[in-house]
Amino acid sequence: MKLKKTERRHEIKKAINENPFITDSELCELFNVSIQTIRLDRTQLNIPELRKRIKSVAKQNYEYIKGLEANEVIGDLIQVKPNYSAQSIIEITEEYVFQKTRIARGHILFAQANSLCVALIHNSTVLTQESNLKFIEKVKLHDNVRAEATVINRTNRHYDIKVESFVKDTRVFTGIFKMFYISEDENHG
Amino acid sequence: MKLKKTERRHEIKKAINENPFITDSELCELFNVSIQTIRLDRTQLNIPELRKRIKSVAKQNYEYIKGLEANEVIGDLIQVKPNYSAQSIIEITEEYVFQKTRIARGHILFAQANSLCVALIHNSTVLTQESNLKFIEKVKLHDNVRAEATVINRTNRHYDIKVESFVKDTRVFTGIFKMFYISEDENHG
Repeated sequence: MKLKKTERRHEIKKAINENPFITDSELCELFNVSIQTIRLDRTQLNIPELRKRIKSVAKQNYEYIKGLEANEVIGDLIQVKPNYSAQSIIEITEEYVFQKTRIARGHILFAQANSLCVALIHNSTVLTQESNLKFIEKVKLHDNVRAEATVINRTNRHYDIKVESFVKDTRVFTGIFKMFYISEDENHG
Repeated sequence: MKLKKTERRHEIKKAINENPFITDSELCELFNVSIQTIRLDRTQLNIPELRKRIKSVAKQNYEYIKGLEANEVIGDLIQVKPNYSAQSIIEITEEYVFQKTRIARGHILFAQANSLCVALIHNSTVLTQESNLKFIEKVKLHDNVRAEATVINRTNRHYDIKVESFVKDTRVFTGIFKMFYISEDENHG
């Protein structure tokens, strides 16, 4: 059953509060209304479109990273807890897909995950040593891919990081990244 | 001992014939002369600079690939034997390094290797399933990275490909890529 307008707007606001990265098309499905209706509802509620919501959250996070310039993160950094965990979102645009099939190229998923690992380690020179990857599901043009990175082990100068990437609730990619850092002294020595 | 000019030019021509992808700075070291001398010698010998030699070889190879458009190969394809082996070269430019350290970012080495695997398989829809990577040595700004891909195992719809990447004679990266392809029928079905 469709909700009445006032009720629906109330629920939309609640849904976006709970998951700021929900897409308009996910909202369509959730409330069984057209995308035009969702857009109008958001405008009335004064809630910006997804891209702007992501950029706004990402902007705050770039203060916490050390190994990268903000524009070096592939995707938008939506959460970072230095040396523990981080998340980013990337939208698969034309430049990231094979022209023939419109399927996302492997290296863009790798780049998102790998740069997330660098961003997460709070050191200015962070490099990748090893990596084991699984590409689980095809990712398509216009999909939003959310990557979650978590430190699973930490030894002298090394971090083992697990990355899982999702489109909606489907896991599309996983990777284990063995990263190391060079201390500031060595780097300038 | 330095060679005389005529003799040196003869030897330079020979060296480039043997390895068309030798850099001017490698030639400097080999013949113990300045880079200006090498450039002058090449001009006199009518041998174009490395970039042009690479592009010219690459152009011929793009006819042999199926899974990618020519501009989708990351790097220049300098050799391809469909379903067996392939090689590409990429120059590490500013856009591929960390701004702070001038070290090449992991994802560019991955992208070169991964797109080489796609180019090598003679099928129009080729995807990556798994990948194990080792980043062995740091790669720096202006390095020329040569990636060599070889099929090591082939089963139903799957190819296991080993990629080794070198800067001069130093191995900087290796990867095993498990690739699969979708037959043309399925793809359009």
